[in-house]
Amino acid sequence: MITSISNPQVKQVCAYVQKARERRKDGIFVVEGAKMFEEAPADWIYKVYVTQTFCDRHITDDIYEKLTQTGYELVSEEVFLKMSDTKTPQGVLCLVRSPRYTLEDLLRQKQGIFVVLEDLQDPGNLGTIIRTGEGAGIAGVIMTRDTVDIFNPKTIRATMGSVYRVPFVYVQDIAEAILKLQQSQITVYAAHLKGKAYYDAFDYTAGSAFLIGNEGNGLKETTADLADTYVKIPMAGQVESLNAGVAATLFMYEAARQRGF
Amino acid sequence: MITSISNPQVKQVCAYVQKARERRKDGIFVVEGAKMFEEAPADWIYKVYVTQTFCDRHITDDIYEKLTQTGYELVSEEVFLKMSDTKTPQGVLCLVRSPRYTLEDLLRQKQGIFVVLEDLQDPGNLGTIIRTGEGAGIAGVIMTRDTVDIFNPKTIRATMGSVYRVPFVYVQDIAEAILKLQQSQITVYAAHLKGKAYYDAFDYTAGSAFLIGNEGNGLKETTADLADTYVKIPMAGQVESLNAGVAATLFMYEAARQRGF
Repeated sequence: MITSISNPQVKQVCAYVQKARERRKDGIFVVEGAKMFEEAPADWIYKVYVTQTFCDRHITDDIYEKLTQTGYELVSEEVFLKMSDTKTPQGVLCLVRSPRYTLEDLLRQKQGIFVVLEDLQDPGNLGTIIRTGEGAGIAGVIMTRDTVDIFNPKTIRATMGSVYRVPFVYVQDIAEAILKLQQSQITVYAAHLKGKAYYDAFDYTAGSAFLIGNEGNGLKETTADLADTYVKIPMAGQVESLNAGVAATLFMYEAARQRGF
Repeated sequence: MITSISNPQVKQVCAYVQKARERRKDGIFVVEGAKMFEEAPADWIYKVYVTQTFCDRHITDDIYEKLTQTGYELVSEEVFLKMSDTKTPQGVLCLVRSPRYTLEDLLRQKQGIFVVLEDLQDPGNLGTIIRTGEGAGIAGVIMTRDTVDIFNPKTIRATMGSVYRVPFVYVQDIAEAILKLQQSQITVYAAHLKGKAYYDAFDYTAGSAFLIGNEGNGLKETTADLADTYVKIPMAGQVESLNAGVAATLFMYEAARQRGF
């Protein structure tokens, strides 16, 4: 049992929780809670930490079996609180190996629905888009390098487990990625006030990608210009723009709706 | 100019920022930033605080005119930082009188789109629903007493000004409110896994209200039972539920879409 908060493993976990750079260097991210442990693909799990309280109170047969399979390390309550990103931790935390997808992996779903995020900054927004994207059956999420880290603890939490199942990729060059989408016969739509028609007026039943811009500034003009089509989301009242997650939701579910869910 | 953080006005502003009870007692809430100041209805504004830096750097003709109209109090940078809820404040903060709507006010829009929120807890979620609601042209938001305070600074920020324009009301008894909606010929829909049809299969062109449950637990069974109809949002993959703001978005915009935006 680890009882000291100066134990090197504890320090390493804290570094993974707090720093995207540390996560990226080792290809490891941190998930917390029974649900996130249960849903984690067994072969992605690198290390599991639990408290005695968790073992005494929260272990179902499924969790017991999985813990036996993965192995685990007991830590004191104090150590757990130090490692945890939440105020009232459940007492189970895992280090998980980051999946590695390439743009080519994602593009195998030629008729898929894709979301392309430019410099999204809010971790909760990104997590919600991943969760909603799984619900809408999307093929994947493509993000610029300056988008918030998908393995940020807040993002992970907001995905509610969808981070294990929705393929994603960070790209150096968004223009190149958009070109590759287009070369794969995927039509690229940009949410833009210049759009001549509303989002429900297009046919998304073939491969479709939706460009969503940063929360504060929307899409860069240079990025929006690369799209095949500008699309408007109608807004009543004095609303000038919608939240990025809301815009993504409307596009993804409109595409799903047209495909008969 | 106020230069001391122990000034009673400063303490009062901090209390309004931090405590829903203080806001409720005096019917006052706090907004920050130039945009929120500009969009605030002039007769709602109770008091304006600005820093010298704001006066020197950020004043447009419109802001100048409004400041002349409302009056303002200069405060030191230190005092402003103390009062502000943000890390990099813009230097303008107002106390605003809370609007008071009744359920009867809202119900005057008999063909309106309504959202009924049960015990929503996330301030950002609530703010996003208000903002998206204005975009979809809804008639109002009805909330249970245990829903997060709409005047929480995080909620205010997430509304992007829509809090000034979307009517809302907190109700003691959600069952009574639902009954009043129904008595006004407004059909009440509950997002529920028991729904027999998807959300795009209903006609929302007459008065329609959508019940949205708490983030963790969804709608209470006793509340869902009061709806005229259960409605399903389809979910692919292993997704068990959607974020409350996402569910509200899909309903509100589907209703707006059917009404021809």
